Amino acid sequence: MTLDSKKEPFHFNLLKKDAGSRARLGTLTTSHGQIKTPAFMPVGTQATVKSLLPETVRQLGADIILGNTYHLYLRPGHELIRKMGGLHEFMNWHHPILTDSGGFQIYSLGALRKLSEKGVVFRSHIDGSSHVMTPEYCIAIQHALGSDIMMCLDECLSYPASFDETEKSLELTVRWARRCKETKNSERNALFGIIQGGAWPRLRKRAVDDICDIGFDGYALGGLSVGEPKEIMYEMVEMTAPLCPEDKPRYLMGVGTPEDLLACTALGIDMFDCVMPTRNARNGMLFTNSGKIAIKNARYREDKAPLDEQCRCYTCRNYSRAYLRHLFIAREILAIVLNTIHNVSFYLTLMENIRKSIQEGVFEDFRRNFLKNIRKND
Amino acid sequence: MTLDSKKEPFHFNLLKKDAGSRARLGTLTTSHGQIKTPAFMPVGTQATVKSLLPETVRQLGADIILGNTYHLYLRPGHELIRKMGGLHEFMNWHHPILTDSGGFQIYSLGALRKLSEKGVVFRSHIDGSSHVMTPEYCIAIQHALGSDIMMCLDECLSYPASFDETEKSLELTVRWARRCKETKNSERNALFGIIQGGAWPRLRKRAVDDICDIGFDGYALGGLSVGEPKEIMYEMVEMTAPLCPEDKPRYLMGVGTPEDLLACTALGIDMFDCVMPTRNARNGMLFTNSGKIAIKNARYREDKAPLDEQCRCYTCRNYSRAYLRHLFIAREILAIVLNTIHNVSFYLTLMENIRKSIQEGVFEDFRRNFLKNIRKND
Repeated sequence: MTLDSKKEPFHFNLLKKDAGSRARLGTLTTSHGQIKTPAFMPVGTQATVKSLLPETVRQLGADIILGNTYHLYLRPGHELIRKMGGLHEFMNWHHPILTDSGGFQIYSLGALRKLSEKGVVFRSHIDGSSHVMTPEYCIAIQHALGSDIMMCLDECLSYPASFDETEKSLELTVRWARRCKETKNSERNALFGIIQGGAWPRLRKRAVDDICDIGFDGYALGGLSVGEPKEIMYEMVEMTAPLCPEDKPRYLMGVGTPEDLLACTALGIDMFDCVMPTRNARNGMLFTNSGKIAIKNARYREDKAPLDEQCRCYTCRNYSRAYLRHLFIAREILAIVLNTIHNVSFYLTLMENIRKSIQEGVFEDFRRNFLKNIRKND
Repeated sequence: MTLDSKKEPFHFNLLKKDAGSRARLGTLTTSHGQIKTPAFMPVGTQATVKSLLPETVRQLGADIILGNTYHLYLRPGHELIRKMGGLHEFMNWHHPILTDSGGFQIYSLGALRKLSEKGVVFRSHIDGSSHVMTPEYCIAIQHALGSDIMMCLDECLSYPASFDETEKSLELTVRWARRCKETKNSERNALFGIIQGGAWPRLRKRAVDDICDIGFDGYALGGLSVGEPKEIMYEMVEMTAPLCPEDKPRYLMGVGTPEDLLACTALGIDMFDCVMPTRNARNGMLFTNSGKIAIKNARYREDKAPLDEQCRCYTCRNYSRAYLRHLFIAREILAIVLNTIHNVSFYLTLMENIRKSIQEGVFEDFRRNFLKNIRKND
């Protein structure tokens, strides 16, 4: 790996802080381009944002997408992707990519066999084969993928977990984070630390201290949206975010609904990812500015209106609800494509409007209005 | 329905006849635009060419697509489509559409209950509901869809069928064709007659006489590619095509492979449709200028080359065989999208090259060369 000619290939510029909340406006610079924050990252699990051409993802407004290390490691394999010129080249996406550590998937998908100081032994959900993941290997894989933003291997507990269990897990995550940082060998690839600590404020605080002590290019809140009540998630974000260094980006992993994005932006989060817009699209659940729509509903059978009158996406400009319902009922692939275009557009347009409203100093107004509208039909 | 202001909204211009074969170059004018012939029509069974945006289908070079009357009648229903402004508007395809009569699907998909002089009673393959299709209703449905080229309801026998059975069926098809023509009530919608007669030359000849006697805007050869040996299909096309009026387009229904398109163009056919490029794409069977590829094959695991070095389609310009294999193995929707783009492009590029070679008087050379190349790896 060669060093980038610029001194700081990765840096975060904090452009503005909202007066009425902790919301922040910024830009993240990576070796594959800039990311406007607050940012939402569409999920491209297996080297594709499901059903979309990469050009479409870009046109919809994505500055960055997320790739799943666990999935790509198992299939097609990181060495294959390295040989193909890295993940960007392989999947024809020439903009920033963040890869997770695979930790979450190892615990949620793989049959976990043994966790030790060294790492974790797990079985593939595809063929049951046995694999060893260590902090060092995790970073090596992400280097092979050519990720712009790599994540540390962590242990991600589900909710609820006892104080003692969470403390023990957190300490391991901190030791692993140190090993991840020591393994990183390129300035071109940024590395984020992950703050765990479950639903225990004292442990969250300690995690921030310990992880920030090691020092990373950005800080992620992990272990949230794993089954805990929404209020606990918000409470953890609210107390943790302001403890993080102001000059580094803050990433809330795996979150969330449009309401979550607004709430957590207000709490000082800069980056989000979630499968919700893409997965819901495949299930026919569509986001609109006047609430959610289940497109298979009989009420849309002869509905000439677009999905969302306020939306300017390709789907809303060209198709009726009646057509989208027909495609979905007939199990046509185009249903998934058009639904995904709309939902991803909805999320990315929301983020664009959030950024605009912070810029213009009307974030809280925007948030109140948006929430009022999407709750109209609930 | 109002008459188009032009006297002949539908007409065929025969531009050139090939010197070395019966191949013809022409243009078909419909109320939704022109079609260059020989033409291949991608199949859009359920108001979508599976997995493709209509703009993509157009960009790949399609002048016309085919819609399936049987499928659209059952779901979402032709009256719904009429209310939505017709099939073009419903599916956002503003170019010519040919609709089949549904006859073939009634015999192949629906449980046929009773065929009578009046029409055919059949059961839906979706929910088992009972339906009556008559020649009059078939045309009314296609009018509701707003098809540019409608097809007569026919009886389509499978192979083999006895002389007597074929003769009886043919006579019914001719009587039905007359009723279809009498029902047609708009100059905007052309109507093609269908020539049946199975594998019996005498009956094929009689079918041409009887159907041409009624007089249609174009003539289709039906009941081929239904299980008969390839030589019989070619023999039937060879003897039937030249008997059809020279000034009307000739359409070979449901055919075929790239080889078939070349062979039957040489025999005087102007229009083709087939599910092969789209269906094979979904199954990972890809056409290339050096033969067919099963993309799941392990030999493509680390293959950096595009599917087809000679192809200029979006898929070949941007992705490796290794990536396409990965997507296919991982059952990603994008696999189907990219494969379909390539296969449809392959078919439409073939047709473009066929037209160019007829224009330049080198059709037979082109054909020989093309066949030599695609057989190289067989």
